[in-house]
Amino acid sequence: MLSVQLAAIEMNTFFAYYPCMESIYFDWAATAPILPELPQLISEALFTFQGNPSSIHSSGKKSKTELEYNRKVFAKLLETKPEQLIFTSGGSESNSIIFSSLFLKKPGSHIILSAIEHPSIYEFATNLKSFGYEIDFIKPAANGIIIPENIEKHLKKNTTLVSIMTVNNETGAIQKINEIGKLIRHFEQKNGRKVHFHTDAVQALGKIPFKPGLLNIDSASFSAHKIGGPKGVGMLFLKKPLNVISSGGGQEFTIRPGTENIAGIKAFARAMEISLEKLDINYKLVQSLKTILIDELKKIKGIKFLFDNNFESDYSPYIVNATVAPIPGEVVVRMLSDEGIQISTGSACSSRNSKKKLRVLTASGISEQEASGSIRISLGWSSTKEEILNFSLVLNTIISKLRIYHK
Amino acid sequence: MLSVQLAAIEMNTFFAYYPCMESIYFDWAATAPILPELPQLISEALFTFQGNPSSIHSSGKKSKTELEYNRKVFAKLLETKPEQLIFTSGGSESNSIIFSSLFLKKPGSHIILSAIEHPSIYEFATNLKSFGYEIDFIKPAANGIIIPENIEKHLKKNTTLVSIMTVNNETGAIQKINEIGKLIRHFEQKNGRKVHFHTDAVQALGKIPFKPGLLNIDSASFSAHKIGGPKGVGMLFLKKPLNVISSGGGQEFTIRPGTENIAGIKAFARAMEISLEKLDINYKLVQSLKTILIDELKKIKGIKFLFDNNFESDYSPYIVNATVAPIPGEVVVRMLSDEGIQISTGSACSSRNSKKKLRVLTASGISEQEASGSIRISLGWSSTKEEILNFSLVLNTIISKLRIYHK
Repeated sequence: MLSVQLAAIEMNTFFAYYPCMESIYFDWAATAPILPELPQLISEALFTFQGNPSSIHSSGKKSKTELEYNRKVFAKLLETKPEQLIFTSGGSESNSIIFSSLFLKKPGSHIILSAIEHPSIYEFATNLKSFGYEIDFIKPAANGIIIPENIEKHLKKNTTLVSIMTVNNETGAIQKINEIGKLIRHFEQKNGRKVHFHTDAVQALGKIPFKPGLLNIDSASFSAHKIGGPKGVGMLFLKKPLNVISSGGGQEFTIRPGTENIAGIKAFARAMEISLEKLDINYKLVQSLKTILIDELKKIKGIKFLFDNNFESDYSPYIVNATVAPIPGEVVVRMLSDEGIQISTGSACSSRNSKKKLRVLTASGISEQEASGSIRISLGWSSTKEEILNFSLVLNTIISKLRIYHK
Repeated sequence: MLSVQLAAIEMNTFFAYYPCMESIYFDWAATAPILPELPQLISEALFTFQGNPSSIHSSGKKSKTELEYNRKVFAKLLETKPEQLIFTSGGSESNSIIFSSLFLKKPGSHIILSAIEHPSIYEFATNLKSFGYEIDFIKPAANGIIIPENIEKHLKKNTTLVSIMTVNNETGAIQKINEIGKLIRHFEQKNGRKVHFHTDAVQALGKIPFKPGLLNIDSASFSAHKIGGPKGVGMLFLKKPLNVISSGGGQEFTIRPGTENIAGIKAFARAMEISLEKLDINYKLVQSLKTILIDELKKIKGIKFLFDNNFESDYSPYIVNATVAPIPGEVVVRMLSDEGIQISTGSACSSRNSKKKLRVLTASGISEQEASGSIRISLGWSSTKEEILNFSLVLNTIISKLRIYHK
């Protein structure tokens, strides 16, 4: 069906007019291109820090010293204590550490999640139901943003964990994490029982101001490759030590076993430094690009924004979501890809499973058809106005041709 | 106490006579030096494969293709099906996937472990006790090797999992995995119920012949950095799909969530190719070095081998364990390190926890004092006879001086 459509349209003739467009990458929320200086840094670190940081001999100590140096770099940048930062293999593992620790607590307690969490949280929590956990999935309001009082309302005597992501990876909606945290802290005092408040901050780190040490949260997950670091490295902010199912070899304050990926961690720390040094500049750049993008998209017949106020400060400027319904978003994504333009329909982590990929948007009040037509354009520090104009031009052509087949 | 000893001995004067010894690395079992070609390969791969393999656009597909290509490289080398290989962040995570999957099974069943498992298994299993699991820890015979019939004897109607490591990381003892597997398969037929047989094969991969697809096992764990690949990459062989607590974004056949570390996986595959190409040559080299090492160590007064037959084929030639008791092994390791020689007392993963570090040896029938004096010398493909002779010379001097203080 898709290939028939593609063949019928014969876009290639048209796009021969755009030789400038070698490749436009607008899928930074799935993964950011690696920062240009990092491959060399990693290559050197692989030679320099060879020892196992757990070894007590000199080359082990050298690795251990480098590991702890990088932890301190993060701690300073994120205003945490070094021992509150646990290096992991990525955002998913960071989330998983928090959720799997629940097995060590009294089963049958209560969890509150937003209905728009990343699959690594959503799928885990869903599995917890069969262990007697009661779970409330809180939907955001029609603008994609959770109302903090809706979380508060659901707090119960036996609530163990609340998990709300900071920036949604599909809609870009920024959740009111600190406000929710304050309500949870207030409830704790009243109820006399600790509630762990976790946030998946993968799309927030290095993009919007986010200092975990200064927020009313107990833990936060981060990923290196979303800010231009290497894949396979992540971090967990943990305000206080946590009992985990396996401390294994005792690495990372017994929270995350396994030999630490020194070269990857060093590259992540450098990516963090660069991201934070340039946070304001990049934010302003991307914000201005987003405004141009939205203006251009508004000119295209057949494009609708998911939320009326998609351009306000409640949303990350790095993520723009629109719908091309009734055209399936996937068709547009694939056709754009054939033209060297890379965007996505939603989360890369659910893009290969059509059953699951509409969850976040439909939970945000978007109809199933509109969600099926959704496209996510996510920007980054090297995005340009020219790319946006070219992208809009191609998108317009694709949509106007496809609209013949989807009425 | 330690520093007093070190100061008293003033080794520096002595070792000024050995300017040749810049650094001798004999801790390959903790981590192998990275293969010289890999940092460049990783650096290039970080530039080349930027897309998220889960993205459906061209750069995502390019990463996905590379990911699956590397999986096929492993499948061919290890004689498995590609879909039986799950990329992880390391050996510890590979082990953890198997053990955490138990939470999805009926609690209160029975597990059999060797008493000499790696901490990532031993600690996890110990935690499972509080979930109603009954665990039998099977000690090896006095030669460090588990008697297969001792495993068979402990199999029960409700045995869910058996986990026996292939090559012990401290003693080098090679366990009779396929024989144990056969007994388990036979028991399964009789009992009419599946028993999952897992092996931590981290110290076997690329060092002794090990083809998981041809063995009577259900799963096996591997780590890249033990064969000269990068830290932070591992693999799990899984004969049949497994239900896991969290499938997250659905990556790695829904067994291991998280964006795949393409550059690391590519480097791991290359390290695997090199290791297997050179397996025989390296094995023979290291075997001959081990013979020289043992002969040299035998000349040193105050060194005792843990097992009488430490040089036979039941042991990996890559690992030599001896004891310098009553001198604490740690003192010798630290003093050797000051002289540029890097060995270890046992597993790097437990070397920072003195309470736990004697477990494997005492479970192998070694007295606590002898275990406290143990030193592990682990060799690799670039080890040389000259290094061994120099090491033995320095060790002899250190021990003869320390013996004054430890009688």
